[in-house]
Amino acid sequence: MESGNDNELVRNKQVILKDYVSGFPKESDMYVSSNGTMKLKVPEGSNGIVVKNLYLSCDPYMRSRMIKNKAITGNYYIDSFKPGSKGDLVWGRTGWEEYSLITDFQNMFKIQHTEVPMSYYTGILGMPGLTAYAGFFELCSPKKGENVFISTASGAVGQLVGQFAKLLGCYVVGSAGSKEKVDLLKNKFNFNEAFNYKEEPDLDAALKRYFPEGIDIYFENVGAKMLDAVLLNMKAHGRIAACGMISQHNLDKPEGVHNLMHLIYKQIRIEGFFVFDYDHLYPKFLELVLPQIAEGKIVYVEDTAEGLESGPAALIRLFSGLNIGKQVVFITQE
Amino acid sequence: MESGNDNELVRNKQVILKDYVSGFPKESDMYVSSNGTMKLKVPEGSNGIVVKNLYLSCDPYMRSRMIKNKAITGNYYIDSFKPGSKGDLVWGRTGWEEYSLITDFQNMFKIQHTEVPMSYYTGILGMPGLTAYAGFFELCSPKKGENVFISTASGAVGQLVGQFAKLLGCYVVGSAGSKEKVDLLKNKFNFNEAFNYKEEPDLDAALKRYFPEGIDIYFENVGAKMLDAVLLNMKAHGRIAACGMISQHNLDKPEGVHNLMHLIYKQIRIEGFFVFDYDHLYPKFLELVLPQIAEGKIVYVEDTAEGLESGPAALIRLFSGLNIGKQVVFITQE
Repeated sequence: MESGNDNELVRNKQVILKDYVSGFPKESDMYVSSNGTMKLKVPEGSNGIVVKNLYLSCDPYMRSRMIKNKAITGNYYIDSFKPGSKGDLVWGRTGWEEYSLITDFQNMFKIQHTEVPMSYYTGILGMPGLTAYAGFFELCSPKKGENVFISTASGAVGQLVGQFAKLLGCYVVGSAGSKEKVDLLKNKFNFNEAFNYKEEPDLDAALKRYFPEGIDIYFENVGAKMLDAVLLNMKAHGRIAACGMISQHNLDKPEGVHNLMHLIYKQIRIEGFFVFDYDHLYPKFLELVLPQIAEGKIVYVEDTAEGLESGPAALIRLFSGLNIGKQVVFITQE
Repeated sequence: MESGNDNELVRNKQVILKDYVSGFPKESDMYVSSNGTMKLKVPEGSNGIVVKNLYLSCDPYMRSRMIKNKAITGNYYIDSFKPGSKGDLVWGRTGWEEYSLITDFQNMFKIQHTEVPMSYYTGILGMPGLTAYAGFFELCSPKKGENVFISTASGAVGQLVGQFAKLLGCYVVGSAGSKEKVDLLKNKFNFNEAFNYKEEPDLDAALKRYFPEGIDIYFENVGAKMLDAVLLNMKAHGRIAACGMISQHNLDKPEGVHNLMHLIYKQIRIEGFFVFDYDHLYPKFLELVLPQIAEGKIVYVEDTAEGLESGPAALIRLFSGLNIGKQVVFITQE
């Protein structure tokens, strides 16, 4: 966080979205502008702060911000960030640029723990981490011994949900889109089982193989065909946390889900959520996760692109599933 | 309830399902057999009871029992019925016949209140009544002033959900399939608004007309196209109780629902349920509803078919939406 008396005008490279996107986004939908400049001094009369961005985050939800008039509603309550002093480290929602002027502190958290990589605040200790925590513990009411299935399980959120579930004593299976990711799930994150959905001609059969007794909890990141197969395999009183439906992001007409009758047959609850509703849990979440990180009981895999210029490509890679783990863009060390 | 020493063999007419049904059920899928007989005396060594059936109930869920291997799972916990004495009145799940031998008392409730029509125990004071109560109050977390939408709103369950919501001070709109039903909703049940879905070429537009600010609570009895339109019109943190999806009962391949992304965009909860999970609420439910019936603040409309022989036709009428209100089959006065 930079603030105060600096009147210097600095270059401020920015990633700019050219126009609203339909269909699969392309790298060329964005460009890096080097024309921007920014005064490090906060404008007269503003109580904002200037932050220098160290890492940027690539997340699936960003696709839905590329559409015109796409209303995403909800409460965005966060304990207000109290503007601190020059040199403070913060994380939160900024632009894709080198420097950002922040005037709405509700989107900012002060970083208190610096013994971890700073990139963690785009992932395990940031929005995806809190998403995994709130979605799993608050929405899914998990119990020891329950059967948990996670789609896009090696992603920024999925890898954590699986590790939380394992720590609780659940049986955990994840799906992902490559052999490398499946290996990661089984060997690095200690999932009980994992499979490559691209090699399964019949998702229903795959789920029956891994869950002969059915699924208690499904952490939904995919939608459509996977959700349809899951609905056939849920147990009575199963819970589904709908975190994302990445298979649908780039379609103009979303695919149909046909098996919703099973919500009734098996008294299933499905709940969509945004992490913004759970920001008040952040301190409790840190309390759980920091010691686990320190003891190596929770690990986190990142896929880091170097430089703001690599941002557009990194985001497109995410939608193609080419990233391994949390996709981060590194801008500068300090 | 008849029990004890009667050794008499009586005729026991029964409605028999000929075979599993696919597609829309026909009256000819069932037949009335007059060949059955029954000893009114309970078999030696059995602790069962014999009941004489006065009214039978036609309910949408019965369609899903006509399919082979259609697993409907869940907890069927009910406070055990204590076998009483000859002449007791009971309600619960029996066969479609004149007399039934009951050995599983978990499905039986003793009738304590006889100041209401006995047919009410197939409807407002029976399974549909408790369904409306549990689905609305337990699943939807309703608050005064919220916007409530109910599909198949003049049916056995819908008419009650709407009246509960009105009593709580909600804005209530219902959809139904004829002018007569729409009139009933507005004039008899005091819904704020009602519309005939068959006359709406664009359900999304219809909902926007009645809910310019969106829907807080949707009581789902229909599925498919209606659910898709509702998802577009839900408010943030909306709740959907999935009670039934009658539009899908008779399809071999269910229709797709395309707008599930809105579960996430608007943090919506949708929960399927069976009344069996809420049987423990029955006394509390009676406490609420009996005085309201006595004071005329809650009314109930029934459509009564006369005689066991009319059962198959009455059930088919239900799936064609020809019934007005709760479909009952009257067998005998006592």
